Amino acid sequence: MSVTEQAKRARVAADDLVTATRATKDAGLLAMADALVARTAEIVAANAADLDAGRANGLSTAILDRLALNEKRIEDMAQALREMAGLADPVGEVVRGSTLPNGLELRQVRVPFGVVGIIYEARPNVTVDAAGICLKSGNAALLRGSSSAAHSNAVLVEVLRDALVGVGLPADAVQLLDASSRDSVKELMRARGLVDVLIPRGGADLIRTVVEESTVPVIETGVGNCHVYVDAAADLDKALAVAVNSKTQRLSTCNTAESLLVHVDVAAAFLPKLLKELRDAGVTVHGTPEVAAFSADVVPATDEDFATEYLSADISVAVVGSLDAAVAHIKRYGTGHTEAIVTDSASAAREFTARVDAAAVMVNASTRFTDGGQFGFGAEIGISTQKLHARGPMGLPELTSTKYVVTGDGHLRG
Amino acid sequence: MSVTEQAKRARVAADDLVTATRATKDAGLLAMADALVARTAEIVAANAADLDAGRANGLSTAILDRLALNEKRIEDMAQALREMAGLADPVGEVVRGSTLPNGLELRQVRVPFGVVGIIYEARPNVTVDAAGICLKSGNAALLRGSSSAAHSNAVLVEVLRDALVGVGLPADAVQLLDASSRDSVKELMRARGLVDVLIPRGGADLIRTVVEESTVPVIETGVGNCHVYVDAAADLDKALAVAVNSKTQRLSTCNTAESLLVHVDVAAAFLPKLLKELRDAGVTVHGTPEVAAFSADVVPATDEDFATEYLSADISVAVVGSLDAAVAHIKRYGTGHTEAIVTDSASAAREFTARVDAAAVMVNASTRFTDGGQFGFGAEIGISTQKLHARGPMGLPELTSTKYVVTGDGHLRG
Repeated sequence: MSVTEQAKRARVAADDLVTATRATKDAGLLAMADALVARTAEIVAANAADLDAGRANGLSTAILDRLALNEKRIEDMAQALREMAGLADPVGEVVRGSTLPNGLELRQVRVPFGVVGIIYEARPNVTVDAAGICLKSGNAALLRGSSSAAHSNAVLVEVLRDALVGVGLPADAVQLLDASSRDSVKELMRARGLVDVLIPRGGADLIRTVVEESTVPVIETGVGNCHVYVDAAADLDKALAVAVNSKTQRLSTCNTAESLLVHVDVAAAFLPKLLKELRDAGVTVHGTPEVAAFSADVVPATDEDFATEYLSADISVAVVGSLDAAVAHIKRYGTGHTEAIVTDSASAAREFTARVDAAAVMVNASTRFTDGGQFGFGAEIGISTQKLHARGPMGLPELTSTKYVVTGDGHLRG
Repeated sequence: MSVTEQAKRARVAADDLVTATRATKDAGLLAMADALVARTAEIVAANAADLDAGRANGLSTAILDRLALNEKRIEDMAQALREMAGLADPVGEVVRGSTLPNGLELRQVRVPFGVVGIIYEARPNVTVDAAGICLKSGNAALLRGSSSAAHSNAVLVEVLRDALVGVGLPADAVQLLDASSRDSVKELMRARGLVDVLIPRGGADLIRTVVEESTVPVIETGVGNCHVYVDAAADLDKALAVAVNSKTQRLSTCNTAESLLVHVDVAAAFLPKLLKELRDAGVTVHGTPEVAAFSADVVPATDEDFATEYLSADISVAVVGSLDAAVAHIKRYGTGHTEAIVTDSASAAREFTARVDAAAVMVNASTRFTDGGQFGFGAEIGISTQKLHARGPMGLPELTSTKYVVTGDGHLRG
């Protein structure tokens, strides 16, 4: 079936979902969870086929690990769906409301987008998560996963669709798109009018392509070249802990710090300790000469280092002369994801948070907190680095639009 | 100067605007208002040059009227700026906030977009309005008006820039782009990274081009093929008044009704009165045979009639067998702008508002109420017909993004 045909079916399903009650949607989520657990053997068997193919194709251990499903991971996916059932329904929330001077009753109400397209990497749990989040927010989902997860995704989506039908919801609320070529991505990007929003997740190349070529509105999820700025007024113990946690708590996530900026006034007191801790943690420091002065382990940093989202055990480090210089550096190299300041100065914190243009600005906290789960959203479909519609971690409300409902009694405009 | 160069200057100005207080921005608005009034003669003289050129180029009386400025209209523009100064500052509003279980303080705060591009038609008042709305919301404005208003816009923008400088705000917060060719539009559409959002206002062709070709995120303002559905349970007097007001209160706006759907049960009681009133108002009815049965004046309606936003003294009319059929008709032909139902049935109103997918759904009220002024927003930059970011009339909050500010005390992710 063509993507266009699938999108048309999704629209029909979306018409049903728009009026589905929370009770019905939650029943769907719980049925999906139960079905995943009940059909664990089938899912694991399909996943084994993907893993075999992956090994034959020379996929890295890290990718194979992300791809792998077992009983525990399937139970985790099911549990995530059960937890979504416990979240408030974003649909129907009155965002704004008033009675106008002429007596008209104005309400701005959250409504589903309709059809949401999601393009993602080789993580089968995203298939289940995205299907669940879309269902809860009343949207039909068009899922375009990775070809390396094709067998797993095919069975997962079949299980989810069967579960939906079991509770009277349309199977086409969740559909898997062909992942064997880029054609399905191209068709999805041109399905304006059928698909309401497209969320690309994955590498920078994919995201750039979608942003440039899609006529369907896109929510860009993004690259994170995140900085930690250690201010002159920082508590250096806290600064050390925040800097190291921001880099090493997990190396390859978008909210991992990739660059440290240290105020010159604290450089001599701070950098030796920092460099030692990073070395002990196995992190290679790419530093300017001012940084290298404190350790022979420092690799010279190029301009490109400061522009790089390493996603590895590497970090760039520079000394800056002022908060102004830190803000200017971040303006030049940052990607608008997460930027942190460590300082005990209220005025420095105020200035940094006001002037740094990013989805999230941390004060005395690790960059790793930029996350829907950490923010208490309960479910997350990605982290937006664009300014339109959603910025930062996207939970259920970010998967909705709004509609004005205006009620009168024969009101005419004079 | 190239658009790219102007956009770079706008970014610099935007950096100042992001931390400008409401007091400073309001002072700018009042200075702009005063300067417009003080320099009325200069503005009128420039406008006369546009009007002369327009007459020579054979512009219609309607367009010449929209283009014309006089003392009264300049005072009106100034007054609109003064009223904006009275509106709350959207920047800094805390949209969401909580203390997380680990003690992190989370706040989602409204921030300016940064640089906003606006492409619009030959109405010089939009130049002033857009500049004012952008300033109040902390955004730098790149204004691309019509070539037929080039002299007027040049002087208006010069006046506004002088006023900004007078209160210590950057002149480049408001810039006019070259309107002599489409090249500036093309350059603006490709200025991703420099321009944060693009708002095209004007004809369907322009909007389609921008939506399809822009890599800068777009807010689509739109075509309104708006319907009034007269339900079986309608109060027919109210229905008549709402239908006629929706079409005739102003003929050429996007929230004008272009199509009427009448439930078959009330067709015989309603249509003769409706057709007479429309005829008396000089409106040509394009109707199906069921409609034509009630009057010899009815012109046969084609499929294309139902798809047309007339913006003239024309309306399409059809009889429908049910509310379901009305919803299906609107789904097929509607443009997602404004749809109205006239009914005394609470269940019919509930179903119509839930199922019709549009920016605004009116119950027993004229479609003409979809308007930022009517909704009490105080300022409006256009009416969005897309679902991403803003839908319906866009006021000041719709010209902002948000930023998460997260404050801890050395918080680490475990």
